[in-house]
Amino acid sequence: MTTEPAYIDLLRSIATDPAARRLADDAAVLTIGKQSLVLTKDMLAQGVHFLPDDPPADVAWKLVAANVSDLAAKGATPLACLTGHTLSGDAAWDSAFVQGLGEALDHYGMLLIGGDTISAAAGAPRVLSLTAIGLPSVPVPPSRSGALASDGLFVTGTIGDGWAGLQLLQAGRTEPRSLISAYRRPQARIADGRALAQIAHAMMDVSDGLLIDAARMADASGLGVKIDLAKVPLSEDFVGAFAADQDAALSAATGGDDYQLLFAADGQAHLPVPAVRVGGFAEGSGLTISWNGMPVDLPAKLGWLHG
Amino acid sequence: MTTEPAYIDLLRSIATDPAARRLADDAAVLTIGKQSLVLTKDMLAQGVHFLPDDPPADVAWKLVAANVSDLAAKGATPLACLTGHTLSGDAAWDSAFVQGLGEALDHYGMLLIGGDTISAAAGAPRVLSLTAIGLPSVPVPPSRSGALASDGLFVTGTIGDGWAGLQLLQAGRTEPRSLISAYRRPQARIADGRALAQIAHAMMDVSDGLLIDAARMADASGLGVKIDLAKVPLSEDFVGAFAADQDAALSAATGGDDYQLLFAADGQAHLPVPAVRVGGFAEGSGLTISWNGMPVDLPAKLGWLHG
Repeated sequence: MTTEPAYIDLLRSIATDPAARRLADDAAVLTIGKQSLVLTKDMLAQGVHFLPDDPPADVAWKLVAANVSDLAAKGATPLACLTGHTLSGDAAWDSAFVQGLGEALDHYGMLLIGGDTISAAAGAPRVLSLTAIGLPSVPVPPSRSGALASDGLFVTGTIGDGWAGLQLLQAGRTEPRSLISAYRRPQARIADGRALAQIAHAMMDVSDGLLIDAARMADASGLGVKIDLAKVPLSEDFVGAFAADQDAALSAATGGDDYQLLFAADGQAHLPVPAVRVGGFAEGSGLTISWNGMPVDLPAKLGWLHG
Repeated sequence: MTTEPAYIDLLRSIATDPAARRLADDAAVLTIGKQSLVLTKDMLAQGVHFLPDDPPADVAWKLVAANVSDLAAKGATPLACLTGHTLSGDAAWDSAFVQGLGEALDHYGMLLIGGDTISAAAGAPRVLSLTAIGLPSVPVPPSRSGALASDGLFVTGTIGDGWAGLQLLQAGRTEPRSLISAYRRPQARIADGRALAQIAHAMMDVSDGLLIDAARMADASGLGVKIDLAKVPLSEDFVGAFAADQDAALSAATGGDDYQLLFAADGQAHLPVPAVRVGGFAEGSGLTISWNGMPVDLPAKLGWLHG
């Protein structure tokens, strides 16, 4: 059986152009004449990334937000997209999906310009995809691999709200709205990404979990990284629904679905948008974590690992 | 249950930018500053577009060829692509697929720059997709809708070879190679497309069948179209394996999977590449067919209709 990393290794052997960024970044950066484009593609499979009874308009929103978040992580502004859709045989589902798609595209200012629609085999779970094209705000969009050993590690917004929303929904709750909404209708940070691309040495979005994504940035940069869990920014509603202790912070930092931007920057740099320093890089390798400076063992799972 | 045309109607209501070409063309044409791009996306679902025991390298080849053929139909040269792949749990299949993908990308000179790989639900059929980006050879790539009432209808190459290859394979035969190869390793007409984009008033690739695709071009152009089946170019191997009579020509003209270019042009125009005039447009609507000028009833199926 091929795992995702093993398959990406196979693809890497034929994706040798610099535009592919070794298939190790959130997006590709393709230069055509004097024009650079940022391109990304994300898929969602029913039963894996969403459930059959998730509201279809929210599924569409997350499909768009996941792609736009990848663009934002490269400092790019969404321009246009192509969709891929396997028909479900359920007209109400399909119709609600397109309505949510339209809302998300309006929200993010992205044009739908094409795609493909197919009928999958009877009874097959839905597979949805989007290819998004964005315009970068700097000549060389930040990659995951540019962190320096002296850099701090920063994150925008608050962490764990999407994870918290999912826990609440699974417990049958629909409040607080901010947490439910963080899970159902995540907000990609386009303006933050554009501003941060000016100063970030490395940047990515937090999709699988703060810890695992920070470890990936450190690995791509050939460095080690330390995170103090007590510095992880939690929202008031998160703290109200859970707590502000080490366990809660660890849940937030490994839950994923954050749609925040994680970046490496000079600790003395002026940050153009609000962000919190959660740790820093150092020579070496691997991730180490602490709680108010006291060492903490790494959890068994650093984030949401796709099967 | 939503049909593909009904779903595309839904999408059309949110795809209002001219770049989308009303989702009625082979590809989108996106202009960024002074740079135009041609973009297309095609998906293949196991059990619908290919069979579990089709050679995986050939499935990869067809995925690439289908996308490149859409680019060729707009006179564009392939530049780069992003893939989407649901893992099958079968390492040998995945590995052979990537080998075929590499061969096809080399053949067509297209860079792999990104994509997404996911694990679908256990037992789910594979869904494969490709988004391809090409560079147009003319400022306004030909659409499907530009045919004039005085135009002739032309087609490159020979028709029916892919269909014939499938029939032979299903009958357990592996010869003649030219027909098997037309089915397994179709050749998109990039150079022909670039040359024809200079003179074609409308152009598309023949993917679902000559008759149905000609009817679509006529409909998009607000015209009627006539085709003489006796003019449909058949290969020597096709005639050898089947016949050159009206039935055989009708099979060829409705079989699909041709990867040839269908175009509308002035009947007096100098054709820059070999092509055969199979009919012509006229005021009115609909498709009419004949055999050496004698009217022929339309068959029940004009081509391969995706479910």
